[in-house]
Amino acid sequence: MDNVKIIEIKQSVYESNDREADKLRSELKARGTFLLNLMSSPGAGKTTLLESVIPKLARKYKIGVMEADIDADVDAVRIKETGAKSIQLHTGGMCHLDAGMTRQGLDELLEDGMDFAILENVGNLVCPAEFDTGASMNACLLSVPEGIDKPLKYPLMFEVCKLVVITKIDTLPYFDFDVEKCKEYIKMRNPEAKVLMVSAKTGEGIDELCKTLEEYIEAQKG
Amino acid sequence: MDNVKIIEIKQSVYESNDREADKLRSELKARGTFLLNLMSSPGAGKTTLLESVIPKLARKYKIGVMEADIDADVDAVRIKETGAKSIQLHTGGMCHLDAGMTRQGLDELLEDGMDFAILENVGNLVCPAEFDTGASMNACLLSVPEGIDKPLKYPLMFEVCKLVVITKIDTLPYFDFDVEKCKEYIKMRNPEAKVLMVSAKTGEGIDELCKTLEEYIEAQKG
Repeated sequence: MDNVKIIEIKQSVYESNDREADKLRSELKARGTFLLNLMSSPGAGKTTLLESVIPKLARKYKIGVMEADIDADVDAVRIKETGAKSIQLHTGGMCHLDAGMTRQGLDELLEDGMDFAILENVGNLVCPAEFDTGASMNACLLSVPEGIDKPLKYPLMFEVCKLVVITKIDTLPYFDFDVEKCKEYIKMRNPEAKVLMVSAKTGEGIDELCKTLEEYIEAQKG
Repeated sequence: MDNVKIIEIKQSVYESNDREADKLRSELKARGTFLLNLMSSPGAGKTTLLESVIPKLARKYKIGVMEADIDADVDAVRIKETGAKSIQLHTGGMCHLDAGMTRQGLDELLEDGMDFAILENVGNLVCPAEFDTGASMNACLLSVPEGIDKPLKYPLMFEVCKLVVITKIDTLPYFDFDVEKCKEYIKMRNPEAKVLMVSAKTGEGIDELCKTLEEYIEAQKG
């Protein structure tokens, strides 16, 4: 198995996470690096989606990924195979990352400059939403097998995300998943949210997602 | 829509959660009530599984369910339709329940005595595993669409669960899910874990799960 760099991140020492997050966001803007904080339930398909998206965007951009997990390095190994720079962050049992913890990963990831950095957060719809990581934007995935009621049960997650990607849409025939109702629930939490639908398996929607990400990356370059 | 009782639970005041949990567990044993703490990722099918299991076990046992969520009461409404007593616990944004919080729900649920009480915990593979709720047993679901690597990434969840139920097995043909490998990962975290496989949709495995639960309920009666 390929070796990936594993960083054991430490609890943050900053008094105000919000202040630290704003500072990090400004620094990223100044460097022209777009940092996406990608969140979802466990198994919604974050890594699989990145495996589809990275090769397309890598033709034009320098990309790096931080994989945050309680344990293991399976995701960082998978991402490394796409050719992107990939590091694994271990949270020491913690269920989220805050801005100080994100900075510890970025210090390693951004060494050589990056257009597009991705934080694949711990799989969890509760805690990661509560902490501003300092990312340029929050996005979350909602997979078809999970069902449409997630925005009802996990309101904050959908309030803080500007982009919601419905994944595994190739499985729509096998699940009772009302797409329009789901979109309605998402908009109820965040009327401004952009909602896209993709299947990493069939490739449906991947080009549109890449186009959207490209707009964000370009906007960050200013 | 049916009305269900919603309890806004408060942060616990107990100094030692472990002590409080042991106390609650003894009280449940003395009353002959088996309390199952059911955990999983969001959307792994906890409520759907209970909808399959409750009608079968209700022929013989008095059953009550506490649905813990950050918000909404969709699950408690669904459970009420099975005929079981059902209450909704709102955690005030918290990602888990501890023993004191569980007790607040049980005070309401157990009024008239219960053979089988179920705590459907917040959908989350991290935080709920960290807090002993005082339940007689911990169980977790792992759904086929989530993938087999969850025991690698969320070790504690699988260490604390005596029963792991692989759900949505009717979707095995549509996902790349190696059952034997998954069982191996589960056993790596907890060699004693019992692993069952079910589909609430086709009914496969439901009888065996009910038989297992019946054994636990009877053992609790002593």
